[in-house]
Amino acid sequence: MTRRDFRFVHTLRVRWAEVDKQDIVFNGHYLTYFDVAITEYWRCIGVPYPGVTERWGTDLFVVKAGIEYHGPAHYDDILDIGVRVARIGNSSMHFVLGIFRGGQHLIGGELIYVNAVPTTRKASPVPSELRELIDAYENEVSVEANAGIIGVKRSGRS
Amino acid sequence: MTRRDFRFVHTLRVRWAEVDKQDIVFNGHYLTYFDVAITEYWRCIGVPYPGVTERWGTDLFVVKAGIEYHGPAHYDDILDIGVRVARIGNSSMHFVLGIFRGGQHLIGGELIYVNAVPTTRKASPVPSELRELIDAYENEVSVEANAGIIGVKRSGRS
Amino acid sequence: MTRRDFRFVHTLRVRWAEVDKQDIVFNGHYLTYFDVAITEYWRCIGVPYPGVTERWGTDLFVVKAGIEYHGPAHYDDILDIGVRVARIGNSSMHFVLGIFRGGQHLIGGELIYVNAVPTTRKASPVPSELRELIDAYENEVSVEANAGIIGVKRSGRS
Amino acid sequence: MTRRDFRFVHTLRVRWAEVDKQDIVFNGHYLTYFDVAITEYWRCIGVPYPGVTERWGTDLFVVKAGIEYHGPAHYDDILDIGVRVARIGNSSMHFVLGIFRGGQHLIGGELIYVNAVPTTRKASPVPSELRELIDAYENEVSVEANAGIIGVKRSGRS
Repeated sequence: MTRRDFRFVHTLRVRWAEVDKQDIVFNGHYLTYFDVAITEYWRCIGVPYPGVTERWGTDLFVVKAGIEYHGPAHYDDILDIGVRVARIGNSSMHFVLGIFRGGQHLIGGELIYVNAVPTTRKASPVPSELRELIDAYENEVSVEANAGIIGVKRSGRS
Repeated sequence: MTRRDFRFVHTLRVRWAEVDKQDIVFNGHYLTYFDVAITEYWRCIGVPYPGVTERWGTDLFVVKAGIEYHGPAHYDDILDIGVRVARIGNSSMHFVLGIFRGGQHLIGGELIYVNAVPTTRKASPVPSELRELIDAYENEVSVEANAGIIGVKRSGRS
Repeated sequence: MTRRDFRFVHTLRVRWAEVDKQDIVFNGHYLTYFDVAITEYWRCIGVPYPGVTERWGTDLFVVKAGIEYHGPAHYDDILDIGVRVARIGNSSMHFVLGIFRGGQHLIGGELIYVNAVPTTRKASPVPSELRELIDAYENEVSVEANAGIIGVKRSGRS
Repeated sequence: MTRRDFRFVHTLRVRWAEVDKQDIVFNGHYLTYFDVAITEYWRCIGVPYPGVTERWGTDLFVVKAGIEYHGPAHYDDILDIGVRVARIGNSSMHFVLGIFRGGQHLIGGELIYVNAVPTTRKASPVPSELRELIDAYENEVSVEANAGIIGVKRSGRS
């Protein structure tokens, strides 16, 4: 996994309160980083969460998360968090994530979200408009990648 | 400030994710400890938050917090958190808190809450029933303290 | 997965600061709960972390984590966190975890730790003494389970 | 208190995991925001923490914190965090902080740090070089302010 695998990359800096006695980011905080980066992914493709998702009457719930720890991030490190939607099922979306410090791949991750009715938490098809926005965004990167252009785009802070 | 100053004491253990590189609890986490202890204080006096407070149509908002750090808490320490309502104003409640490790006073704190209408956040008088429950609880301890009885009561975990 | 699958169960209560706008524990905090429960597991089998593990000159690092979210935990819920070492490799330990609210299975998890030299992070065999302590603890439960005795033991807080 | 009171302002965005059921940033997280902003303040004046502070053989410990909550910050808000050293004592530094959302002043704060020997935690005079760097930075802003120039400088992310 390299940064080239991601069109979308969000950058943040490790906070003092996030590292432990070993000067290593506590293993659970990477899920916070993933969440922050996915928030920016939604904003980037034009669907800021949750304002716009609410218009479809459904919400997204995490049903599965996986993290692989290849190397530790330390205090004050600047981390690049790559986000990609690898697969869209009927009601689910499969995100692949990678955390990099410079050229070094520190963390790999995946998150599966299910689109569901908030009150009943019953699965509901991914809205076609959302599916198209994701497809458009992710496919554009493939084209660029094939053409040898670095498809990484840094998210703005504001 | 000693543990004897508090009728109500809640005990918890410092988590790995709460200490920093210096093996010191990050300064902001003490407000989480205060919050946890106040939650148990409400339960202890018979007003579990927020279920019962909701019956008065108002909610509690922190307007001021102060912390004094006398000594650091470390990983795996067992901490006793004393909670006392020191004063009830028209719409405000002034909590005094202390964190102890064994006989050692590590942290002093105070929190001022205002009772307010949730939608408008406009201050509203502290419900008289709540005032009476707090008075009854806190005054009982004075009597015990005067009689030389240790007024500290540990909160149960479940 | 049921609570009966675990000899070791640690109980804690969801904190206000751990739930989000949806009144659901933020997905990353379950790794904090896992960490808290594993800390108590070590204590329970007689190897409080990190004091005693330090005597072998190695430390434990998480290399993989997985979480399945079956149902959400809410504010003030009392959660039982089951911990079991499912497999010990040459230098790795595979933990299986489950979070329950009453009879309901909310969260499943697994964590793989590698025993390694702290400075080089090079893998090192799991100390035989540690292996034996875990085996003794986990096998005892099988015997009890075979005999139809509920093998769940709640961890003390202090 | 306005943004004009601060030469140094650091900007961040509220994370999903930082808001509670009321869609309000949990009261303790503002101390994390303060800490993040002070980290950037140190970097801005040329003393990145802790690398350079370590050269004086002393470290900084928080001894007192105060927070006033004027209005709540919500999920996804962009917050400007003003940091100013208001006073330097013999061994202490008094920071004043303010959190703003656009033109609105949400949070006021103060933090007192003591410079101390890490092993003994005994107070030690603020190194004169550090004192001069702070004075130079803060006084420059006064000059600008007197001249009617907006003294607010946004911190860069990297």
